[in-house]
Amino acid sequence: MRIVIVGGVAGGMSAAARARRLDEQAEIVVLERGAHVSFANCGLPYYVGGEIEEESSLLVQTPATLRAALALDVRTHSDVVAVDTAEKSVRVATAEGEYDLAYDALILSPGAAALRPPLPGLDSPRVRTLRTVDDAIALRGEVVAGAQSAVVLGAGFIGIEAAEALAQQGLDVTLVELAPHPLPPLETELASLVTAELRALGITVRAGVGATRVDGGAESDTVVLADGSTITADLIVLSVGVRPDTAPFEAAGIACERGAIIVDDHGRTSANGVWAVGDATASVDAVTGARRPVALAGPANRAGRLVADDILRPGSARRIPQPVGTAIVRVGSMTAALTGANRAALDAAGVTYRTLHLHPNQHAGYFPGASQVHLVVHVREADGLLLGAQAVGAEGIDKRIDVLATAIRAEMTVEDLIDLDLSYSPPYGQAKDAVNLTGMVGENVRDGKLRLWYAQDLAEVSASALIVDVRTAAEVATGVVPGAVTIPHTELRRRLDELRDAAAGRPVRVMCQSGVRSAIAHRVLTQEGFDSASLSGGMLTLRAWLGDEAESTLTIPAALQNA
Amino acid sequence: MRIVIVGGVAGGMSAAARARRLDEQAEIVVLERGAHVSFANCGLPYYVGGEIEEESSLLVQTPATLRAALALDVRTHSDVVAVDTAEKSVRVATAEGEYDLAYDALILSPGAAALRPPLPGLDSPRVRTLRTVDDAIALRGEVVAGAQSAVVLGAGFIGIEAAEALAQQGLDVTLVELAPHPLPPLETELASLVTAELRALGITVRAGVGATRVDGGAESDTVVLADGSTITADLIVLSVGVRPDTAPFEAAGIACERGAIIVDDHGRTSANGVWAVGDATASVDAVTGARRPVALAGPANRAGRLVADDILRPGSARRIPQPVGTAIVRVGSMTAALTGANRAALDAAGVTYRTLHLHPNQHAGYFPGASQVHLVVHVREADGLLLGAQAVGAEGIDKRIDVLATAIRAEMTVEDLIDLDLSYSPPYGQAKDAVNLTGMVGENVRDGKLRLWYAQDLAEVSASALIVDVRTAAEVATGVVPGAVTIPHTELRRRLDELRDAAAGRPVRVMCQSGVRSAIAHRVLTQEGFDSASLSGGMLTLRAWLGDEAESTLTIPAALQNA
Repeated sequence: MRIVIVGGVAGGMSAAARARRLDEQAEIVVLERGAHVSFANCGLPYYVGGEIEEESSLLVQTPATLRAALALDVRTHSDVVAVDTAEKSVRVATAEGEYDLAYDALILSPGAAALRPPLPGLDSPRVRTLRTVDDAIALRGEVVAGAQSAVVLGAGFIGIEAAEALAQQGLDVTLVELAPHPLPPLETELASLVTAELRALGITVRAGVGATRVDGGAESDTVVLADGSTITADLIVLSVGVRPDTAPFEAAGIACERGAIIVDDHGRTSANGVWAVGDATASVDAVTGARRPVALAGPANRAGRLVADDILRPGSARRIPQPVGTAIVRVGSMTAALTGANRAALDAAGVTYRTLHLHPNQHAGYFPGASQVHLVVHVREADGLLLGAQAVGAEGIDKRIDVLATAIRAEMTVEDLIDLDLSYSPPYGQAKDAVNLTGMVGENVRDGKLRLWYAQDLAEVSASALIVDVRTAAEVATGVVPGAVTIPHTELRRRLDELRDAAAGRPVRVMCQSGVRSAIAHRVLTQEGFDSASLSGGMLTLRAWLGDEAESTLTIPAALQNA
Repeated sequence: MRIVIVGGVAGGMSAAARARRLDEQAEIVVLERGAHVSFANCGLPYYVGGEIEEESSLLVQTPATLRAALALDVRTHSDVVAVDTAEKSVRVATAEGEYDLAYDALILSPGAAALRPPLPGLDSPRVRTLRTVDDAIALRGEVVAGAQSAVVLGAGFIGIEAAEALAQQGLDVTLVELAPHPLPPLETELASLVTAELRALGITVRAGVGATRVDGGAESDTVVLADGSTITADLIVLSVGVRPDTAPFEAAGIACERGAIIVDDHGRTSANGVWAVGDATASVDAVTGARRPVALAGPANRAGRLVADDILRPGSARRIPQPVGTAIVRVGSMTAALTGANRAALDAAGVTYRTLHLHPNQHAGYFPGASQVHLVVHVREADGLLLGAQAVGAEGIDKRIDVLATAIRAEMTVEDLIDLDLSYSPPYGQAKDAVNLTGMVGENVRDGKLRLWYAQDLAEVSASALIVDVRTAAEVATGVVPGAVTIPHTELRRRLDELRDAAAGRPVRVMCQSGVRSAIAHRVLTQEGFDSASLSGGMLTLRAWLGDEAESTLTIPAALQNA
């Protein structure tokens, strides 16, 4: 049995290693177009930034170590240019020429290539991508050679990591993103926290505008943006996205969808004897059912392992689960992470949902170093099923998103989160963990004890209701919504008549700093007969939603303050 | 409606706050024996150690803030000494005398008191406990007054925290534990890592021996141990456990079991109109079904909230879930955490299970700061159901245990762990997270691809099989099992004949450093016809299992090394 694997990173290498463990006798050939296999794909930006010092650290395995440990036949600089699925053979191009290689089973793990939009000037030698070890070495080479300024086109995960890496190296970095904010998959009210952190790193963020061309120059290039502004740079990193790198396979008649190889839940393609895994394949989203490529290492590795099972243990392999799409990125001293579906995906899928905002501490507030976990969680309106979660903060972000990703995989409802027994001791959490609190808020919302209003409805709410800010005078002095009445929540019960007069028949819409005190106030008011609701996530979420507009939107109150 | 709550910490205060949110009109009276309510119970050791600097930080709420925010009637120094469940009334003892207080609903949250074994001399003024704010203030007072040495009796969670706190303050600390190792709920092969860390903190660990008496002296006391040894100390902290503090309630005829109040899954006691929550109640373990008190803040808070629901929304309250028993403790630069059942609990419950040992990195090995997560996971033999997990390490321990606690709550099997989409980027994890790897090893074990042998069977295996150590020469030079053949795993395939000769018909039992390479070797050997098995957790687990016996058990090999 000869298994031929196209692509020696992540999914491909996982398949190779698993295949060997299952079968000592199989001939396993890994064909890799590039110079390296099994390299630290996700570590490349950290090498550019200097945190990973040695190039050798990026090379997790080499053909020699893979031969020694797993008896794999790994061939680098070997580009598969054609497949004959009828003859079960691939055509391999090398520096020495081409040859045909027959297979019994073929696993396609070609990955994705950097998307190159049709912009004039992108062929400038100063324009680079960050997909391979050679890319990373070249970028660090430019830094060492004295590059002073960089433009990063595209503020997805890799674009942000690249921008931070170059800023760490002392370059003057501008990050350009066509979408309204960096990290487009992140919700607006969390993305503004990322924008603030990028600025704190000295990075200029230009969001909501795209590049239109690159003008090459003698000393530097100039990036021209759609609004006419220009940025000169010694270095331009192109990271506007990726596309499945599947041309020879689509040409061979293997069914694809928008370039991504279509696979069943065992990784089988439309061609007999051909499997595919990783960034080049289309997966069905576990939450929304949408089919699209997922460019994540975890699902690729898992699929590689399961494809080897399906080849060597036919009929007994477990199904490849639908990915939940968990992802994480470090931004300076912050972490941003997400799992499941975001608003855009849910809206596109026509799902009716509720959104919760929380800002609990990552560990006991009385223990030194407490910081907030800024959480956004979407739950299905009909039954409270967890649909997606995102978090930004200084600590404990990965933990909460991993717990929520596990809960989503387990098809838990938001109420189920109350019941999770999470580890608690002051350095690690709170007796009511951020995830438990999410469950409690979600239950209150779903059974009607808590009614929410949202930052995005501010204009409408301001026009039709009385906004009541129940924060302390000190908090209020940092800015309030224009027209809001301010009554500290501890005074609310004895100032109900005053509030009733101020409302003059209008609904009241309560808010505080994070949504905790306003929820208490809402309970008071609703039991006193008011038409009340509490601002989801409070002023923290409102400010984050407003972003750069916050300062001009909020005012310092004149009336009723400390009344 | 008057709700009377006995005990103003954790469960009691959660019930009070929830009750107010549900009902603005209810009269809510909280009776607390001590001077403080809602204090930072779990923060006390950190105040003793000085990490929490201010006493005020321990007081999360006061009667005044609780009245202002939640209109609660909080009465401190109010000891409930009797209950008349027929008349629905409690007798309250205060400094000014006693009074009776009628209730419509009574919530008992009295907590647990320090267990005081019947040892001569425990009434010495130098013997203290660490259960209340006053205890913590007194202990820190002794430190400030110049205490130089301390004995901590009992190395449970609080005993360990107290020992570290006193060591941080510069005291010469001896930690005495009757059980064979500190943190008795932890498995032996993890506990030895905790012991090593305690020693690194300068703490003398005396495990497997109890105190028999305390001899008071003029300058210091002397603790006499069962082996006749003595330790003089300026300060003795008693933390050998707790007992439910329920005498007046048991006297009132409320059904108890070994002092713990028996409750149903809405927290209802045997008496009409009386509920109970927290450390004073007996809970049914989610994994083993055993009924015992669980002294953890999370379950107490949750139960408090649900009891308020049951009182004020009768018939619609969710059930109190059975606790999974997740707990965590910081020990120097290490963290130890556990969830679900341990070996002792499983053995006591008669459950047949498998144990997995892993030592994966908490984040990508090529990224700076990688450290190992030492994991022990128990799965049910019959179906792979997750039963319990424990972990020790420098980083990422809380995250993995929280994910596993969530998986246990979701009744996942070990195979389900493979499918979890956990957040990955080099600073946070590995593309195959420690939890995913646990699933992969578990699947391999359960479907027969991997056969394990265990550190505790070393003597038996040494006598009946050939142990094959497949580590590198450099690793082997740090010590091997006597009689083991050493063949680096990369040389195994070409040295099979040599190995067959050495085995001379005996089974071969493979081992490496952590169990990864030996699993590969096992696959090679088993496919070549050997009767093979791989050491679970490798030399890392073996050394940890042996603990202080490791150095005398292991040898430096003479023969076959680098052959």
